[in-house]
Amino acid sequence: MNTNGAKGLVIVNTGCGKGKTTAALGIMMRGWAQNWKMCAIQFIKRPEETCSEMKTARQLGVEWHRAGDGFTWTTNDKDETIAKALYGWILAQEKITSGQYDLILLDEFTYALEFGWINTNDAIGWLHAHKPPTLHLVITGRDAPFELIEFADLVTDMRKVKHPFDQGILAQPGIEF
Amino acid sequence: MNTNGAKGLVIVNTGCGKGKTTAALGIMMRGWAQNWKMCAIQFIKRPEETCSEMKTARQLGVEWHRAGDGFTWTTNDKDETIAKALYGWILAQEKITSGQYDLILLDEFTYALEFGWINTNDAIGWLHAHKPPTLHLVITGRDAPFELIEFADLVTDMRKVKHPFDQGILAQPGIEF
Repeated sequence: MNTNGAKGLVIVNTGCGKGKTTAALGIMMRGWAQNWKMCAIQFIKRPEETCSEMKTARQLGVEWHRAGDGFTWTTNDKDETIAKALYGWILAQEKITSGQYDLILLDEFTYALEFGWINTNDAIGWLHAHKPPTLHLVITGRDAPFELIEFADLVTDMRKVKHPFDQGILAQPGIEF
Repeated sequence: MNTNGAKGLVIVNTGCGKGKTTAALGIMMRGWAQNWKMCAIQFIKRPEETCSEMKTARQLGVEWHRAGDGFTWTTNDKDETIAKALYGWILAQEKITSGQYDLILLDEFTYALEFGWINTNDAIGWLHAHKPPTLHLVITGRDAPFELIEFADLVTDMRKVKHPFDQGILAQPGIEF
């Protein structure tokens, strides 16, 4: 547990560009050197994707959970998708209130808010009441809702200037996943 | 060495927001899971700063070099600063032409270009001629020059929406360094 008295930040990495999840992983690399106890919950993950970061994070002692079953348009069972996102949020609440972590990552959590699977005001209200003051909470995903930006301490908008997808270069292991 | 035939990307993380170096570190976390051979050269680093990412990167087998001696305004010997940046660039050239790496990070390299320590057109011309086609090259720093953006495959502008510095919250280990 974070006992250095530092202020636990709410960090939001949003925008359409690359770097939202990778910048969160980079903070985990710094956190490892600080002996932080860390946990990640991934809310959305395409089932067919391998996930390099999970392997490395676990190697570094990070607890890693996957709550999602892919985007809605890859499943025929929308209710199940929503149920899994809600499960992820319950898991996140457990981890947050446990007081055992220095850093918790809610990866692609904004989609669960944006798609209405989790009510944004309820989530912010809950975090406001329950997030331990020293816990660093990192949230990633496009289209972070206004209420989340208002609640956060540190918000970065990753803007795409150029992306190889636009030149027909496919996603590559190590770079995108 | 990267032998999977993938296109080695030139990736630039620029802008005034947080996430430039951390997003580069996140790619390294993915690269580790892909058994990539990786190297980082830091061009600017305040001497008084500890550097958590160096410790973790080395733990993951990343070669890590520091070429800088801090920003110009923290040293009385500008010539020495420039000399160290040039040393970093020579080291980078050696590593790039060696063909031994899957990913090379030139951290805060844009400052060496922006401050005129290294000529931007010469550097781009050299990279154009010598970068192995499968090598991923990641360059970070504010104010990436236009020529570098034009040369790159993937450019993200990290824009500050909110930063705790603006609320008087100081830089913290694990988050900023």
